Amino acid sequence: MIVVMSPAATQVDVERVLAEVRSRGLEAHVSKGEKHTVIGVVGNTADIDPDDLGALPGVDRVVRVMKPYRLAHREARPEGTRVTLNGGTVTVGGAEVVLAAGPCAVEDERSLLETARAVRQAGAVMLRGGAFKPRTSPYSFQGLGQEGLEILQRAREETGLAIVTEVMAPEQVPLVAAYADVLQIGTRNMYNYPLLRAVGRSGRPVLLKRGMMATIEEWLLAAEYILAEGNPHVILCERGIRTFEGLTRNTLDLSAVPLVKSLSHLPVWVDPSHGTGRADLVIPMARAAVAAGADGLLVEVHGSPGTARSDGAQSLTPDQFRRLVEECRVVAEALGRSLAGPQLELACREASA
Amino acid sequence: MIVVMSPAATQVDVERVLAEVRSRGLEAHVSKGEKHTVIGVVGNTADIDPDDLGALPGVDRVVRVMKPYRLAHREARPEGTRVTLNGGTVTVGGAEVVLAAGPCAVEDERSLLETARAVRQAGAVMLRGGAFKPRTSPYSFQGLGQEGLEILQRAREETGLAIVTEVMAPEQVPLVAAYADVLQIGTRNMYNYPLLRAVGRSGRPVLLKRGMMATIEEWLLAAEYILAEGNPHVILCERGIRTFEGLTRNTLDLSAVPLVKSLSHLPVWVDPSHGTGRADLVIPMARAAVAAGADGLLVEVHGSPGTARSDGAQSLTPDQFRRLVEECRVVAEALGRSLAGPQLELACREASA
Amino acid sequence: MIVVMSPAATQVDVERVLAEVRSRGLEAHVSKGEKHTVIGVVGNTADIDPDDLGALPGVDRVVRVMKPYRLAHREARPEGTRVTLNGGTVTVGGAEVVLAAGPCAVEDERSLLETARAVRQAGAVMLRGGAFKPRTSPYSFQGLGQEGLEILQRAREETGLAIVTEVMAPEQVPLVAAYADVLQIGTRNMYNYPLLRAVGRSGRPVLLKRGMMATIEEWLLAAEYILAEGNPHVILCERGIRTFEGLTRNTLDLSAVPLVKSLSHLPVWVDPSHGTGRADLVIPMARAAVAAGADGLLVEVHGSPGTARSDGAQSLTPDQFRRLVEECRVVAEALGRSLAGPQLELACREASA
Amino acid sequence: MIVVMSPAATQVDVERVLAEVRSRGLEAHVSKGEKHTVIGVVGNTADIDPDDLGALPGVDRVVRVMKPYRLAHREARPEGTRVTLNGGTVTVGGAEVVLAAGPCAVEDERSLLETARAVRQAGAVMLRGGAFKPRTSPYSFQGLGQEGLEILQRAREETGLAIVTEVMAPEQVPLVAAYADVLQIGTRNMYNYPLLRAVGRSGRPVLLKRGMMATIEEWLLAAEYILAEGNPHVILCERGIRTFEGLTRNTLDLSAVPLVKSLSHLPVWVDPSHGTGRADLVIPMARAAVAAGADGLLVEVHGSPGTARSDGAQSLTPDQFRRLVEECRVVAEALGRSLAGPQLELACREASA
Repeated sequence: MIVVMSPAATQVDVERVLAEVRSRGLEAHVSKGEKHTVIGVVGNTADIDPDDLGALPGVDRVVRVMKPYRLAHREARPEGTRVTLNGGTVTVGGAEVVLAAGPCAVEDERSLLETARAVRQAGAVMLRGGAFKPRTSPYSFQGLGQEGLEILQRAREETGLAIVTEVMAPEQVPLVAAYADVLQIGTRNMYNYPLLRAVGRSGRPVLLKRGMMATIEEWLLAAEYILAEGNPHVILCERGIRTFEGLTRNTLDLSAVPLVKSLSHLPVWVDPSHGTGRADLVIPMARAAVAAGADGLLVEVHGSPGTARSDGAQSLTPDQFRRLVEECRVVAEALGRSLAGPQLELACREASA
Repeated sequence: MIVVMSPAATQVDVERVLAEVRSRGLEAHVSKGEKHTVIGVVGNTADIDPDDLGALPGVDRVVRVMKPYRLAHREARPEGTRVTLNGGTVTVGGAEVVLAAGPCAVEDERSLLETARAVRQAGAVMLRGGAFKPRTSPYSFQGLGQEGLEILQRAREETGLAIVTEVMAPEQVPLVAAYADVLQIGTRNMYNYPLLRAVGRSGRPVLLKRGMMATIEEWLLAAEYILAEGNPHVILCERGIRTFEGLTRNTLDLSAVPLVKSLSHLPVWVDPSHGTGRADLVIPMARAAVAAGADGLLVEVHGSPGTARSDGAQSLTPDQFRRLVEECRVVAEALGRSLAGPQLELACREASA
Repeated sequence: MIVVMSPAATQVDVERVLAEVRSRGLEAHVSKGEKHTVIGVVGNTADIDPDDLGALPGVDRVVRVMKPYRLAHREARPEGTRVTLNGGTVTVGGAEVVLAAGPCAVEDERSLLETARAVRQAGAVMLRGGAFKPRTSPYSFQGLGQEGLEILQRAREETGLAIVTEVMAPEQVPLVAAYADVLQIGTRNMYNYPLLRAVGRSGRPVLLKRGMMATIEEWLLAAEYILAEGNPHVILCERGIRTFEGLTRNTLDLSAVPLVKSLSHLPVWVDPSHGTGRADLVIPMARAAVAAGADGLLVEVHGSPGTARSDGAQSLTPDQFRRLVEECRVVAEALGRSLAGPQLELACREASA
Repeated sequence: MIVVMSPAATQVDVERVLAEVRSRGLEAHVSKGEKHTVIGVVGNTADIDPDDLGALPGVDRVVRVMKPYRLAHREARPEGTRVTLNGGTVTVGGAEVVLAAGPCAVEDERSLLETARAVRQAGAVMLRGGAFKPRTSPYSFQGLGQEGLEILQRAREETGLAIVTEVMAPEQVPLVAAYADVLQIGTRNMYNYPLLRAVGRSGRPVLLKRGMMATIEEWLLAAEYILAEGNPHVILCERGIRTFEGLTRNTLDLSAVPLVKSLSHLPVWVDPSHGTGRADLVIPMARAAVAAGADGLLVEVHGSPGTARSDGAQSLTPDQFRRLVEECRVVAEALGRSLAGPQLELACREASA
């Protein structure tokens, strides 16, 4: 950590900073420039809030040198985190790219099962679908709640797909964890620290979406909240950030994929559906996500997007999803990866028969 | 609501939209342009999610005409909402501008009481201070919890200042409501709908901060969640939005003040401390907020900002706060308003004596 | 300037940075932390591009300590810059707040003269109006060109108002300078360095609008381009930045006013018309700008906004502008400033008669 | 175009809008809703500025239905635009992905020629390099000017690579056009309409970078300025937009690639170097750009990035560029495209030999 004093800072101001630094058991090195005195702080500075020093008189700026997250840092697990799902048959964070697909919200059993079968057949190994839905308007459909979770469970029983579904409040965690394989933290809750702690304590794999307004450092610190509760099973998911561009719902920040993979050992997924908000952009952005190195995709698929009760405009039909899978497969294979799932093995076996 | 069909839309596509609209009990008027057919939807469209129609085949775009919030809409209470505090002696949303001040976090009893006395003497009628603190890093100070609430209560007993303090999770609401006069929803929780419902059910006045990347419409819909639970005592607080500018912590959007006051009947406050993140900008932006029409200010004041355990860089000293009060007072009075509080009345009585 | 080496940097990497720094005649101080070696660079580093050092092997980050602008820096003229206009009767950057008003574009002589008389009577001392208009669409009205300049000149002759009008290309500078008192650089041209140099060489006062997505540092560096040509008569103008909010055309960043005034000696104006894009927000934001410390305002006024050929939605009527002037006057006077212009003196004389 | 009247609009307000619409030779259809009257405008509305109608009394909002660009619109050339370079051997906008590479700025003949040979051998068919450099600071290296152009010409003579280089002002166009195969409009000049007209009149192929703050619609309207001068040879280039994220220089908006290709017939390139500002992200984002459907890439390559005089931190070494080419090649081929250039043919011939 580096403390830059302002040109007007007095010797007393400098001494005060030095005293504050030393009172925390850290060392300080002073270096005087033409206008600015600069104080280098040496030791474990990860827990110091730069604003604490920044508020002392005469301080112009405080620059962090070390990353403020430790457990999420690449160095904490240089080999990379792998999260195992579907009874051990699917691994997130390895060589395989994992596809999760399904409707935005669970609407009824019949349509969910149809969609589940369709996405499984196309190559998905996980089923997404919201039972608890955070909606901007209190008058929009808010999800079926526990009934939705039960429908998801039946879909898993029939198809073998692992279930990823959102949890919105700490007190919902035990209920959702009783049904879901992966607990999803939605973009609106990335800063909901009581909820992050609660899913951390659950020990269950967590899909942590990036806040639509969150910096990458804040996102990794949100993961740190979960890891700090002793839960190592965290998957990050880029889903678009808010910018001035109005033709897309969000701006999908694919550079977050290689950047986070260099900063952290956690797997990174991409949600091209929320990331664009337009069905016609989902397939090209899914291909691009795989090419950028994503470990998985979260895709909205609906049997009949035009009558979906939420987010229909960005949902793919099952046919479009099949095309997405094929195009992502060729990109993944060109880059030495493969798609997770039995379909590929079957196809290979047939091809070699 | 207006549905714009794409140039390639077929007659079947148009019929499907008309059927969908009519199935919801609404009327539809078709108007054919050179390239685009446009369908006007008439009736109570507030509860329709534009995406529902937007996903139908052949639809290019859906444009909302009516505002999606009803209870927060200006028309619902043309005379404006007034929230009464301090045993009826302070009214938010009337002619008086209300000042709330205090430290970012409650740190210990002695320093809180000192700050409380100082801000009261300067002209504040409310005391702010966090007992539960949402912090970006799990390793930062997270607040004193219930002990902090008890310290706030003692400050109220001694000074008569009303207490505004943050609540972070639905299950904390009863505890915080037992101590606080106003429940604060922080910027990170503006989209936390279970929490909004919980403070709505509490019936207690709520200070709802704007999410740091929330549109004004989303902010008013967040207020709608509280109002829809039957709690009319909502105060909105602009606190800066996230932009590309790095010299300030946020960009304080003061245009939100007159804009929200025209769209809604709810009082609007401004937080120039978080809105800028720099003590040297707080006073000019406080003056500007009053000039823009703000009904109140939320200001960070700390007896010794350099040793504050959070957000020290943006806290004012008690002396600086006194200057803020005087400068805001002259602006308010120039525009026909006054600052809330007994200080002014006393001063007037003394002056006329 | 501080060079932070990455944890993996070798001694050879450090030596290479030291050699590079010393080759530029600067001193370097090395300080070794637990993980990071940090190199402090001492000397005149203003002309070094941090990226030059940032690209050397083993460098994690380069942090600038000194500001990259010198001539625009507050220290270069601690007493503040004053720009004199209207034959010496109006000073920008002093105690008086200067009002410039007029239509977005000059449309015809009759309507311009009417608007000029109206804004003069209301209290403006400068007339704005575009003869060359940068328009997003090639099919929109692009201004009357030289004919527009001639109309502006006649308005000056009749009313005594100083003229501020936009120049869009280096080769237009001599023409526009032959008619205008102040050359305006529009938001789209803040990064147009050949144009900045050209208006710098003209020696004529320049109103430099902030780019709609420019950082404050980039804006001050744009001013530096003009100052570096030997032209000290630069007025900065905040006009809103682009954010995600859609209800306003831009987000007016009023915190730029006090911030720039602390960083630089240049006067700062505000354009509440483009800054909001909505006539109903112009007056409150004008008041707020004056309260924040603005040295002047640039306001769109049109005799008949509904038929304006550009930007009608944000133009005030002459009556609304009169109200703006009165409200800004009381705010300015409450804060110890006054509005520039003979009107006030006349009014005072009459009042005391 | 749809005009939404406010609930308070009078019959006189509606009549005024109708008169205005009809005075422009357009038809209007009135439809009355519960609160809002809506007026549909039918006819050629592309040239109408929505603000013209938006400023009429009683108008709440104006919604454009037709796109405001005609020549850049997909419909104007459904088969797609192809731009031919390198004496007809390279086509931009066809099945081949075109690679342009080279240093940010031309620094001296020896190093440019070395880089040119290296990128040619690796697979580039075009050479980039700035002779006129727009730099944020007036004290940064501004390019070699005409000397730089001459060095570029010698590189073309030796290597056969086509030259793409930036032009910054209308009066520079003839000079730069005398040397360059493609005139580059940089991000800071996307709104520089006199410059756009000048390159339009030159008839020379133009690479039009997206403004760092520009919406996609504004970008297509900038292309419209060039096309409207009769120059059809326009290539668009996404290069990142400005957001709140600080770890990357810009946020590369890859969704712009498929989106622009559906809206327009113009070829779309991607600049992953400026788009990220970090050498370690360039290769994954180049792969992603190709996967998203980009027609070409503009990549910064420098023989010795650590000593580059501008943008060193984001430049690749020739070795890294070779890896980029190989990885992009496999992605392109997996998706049924190929890389432009003789290398591939040679490789194929060798392989089949």
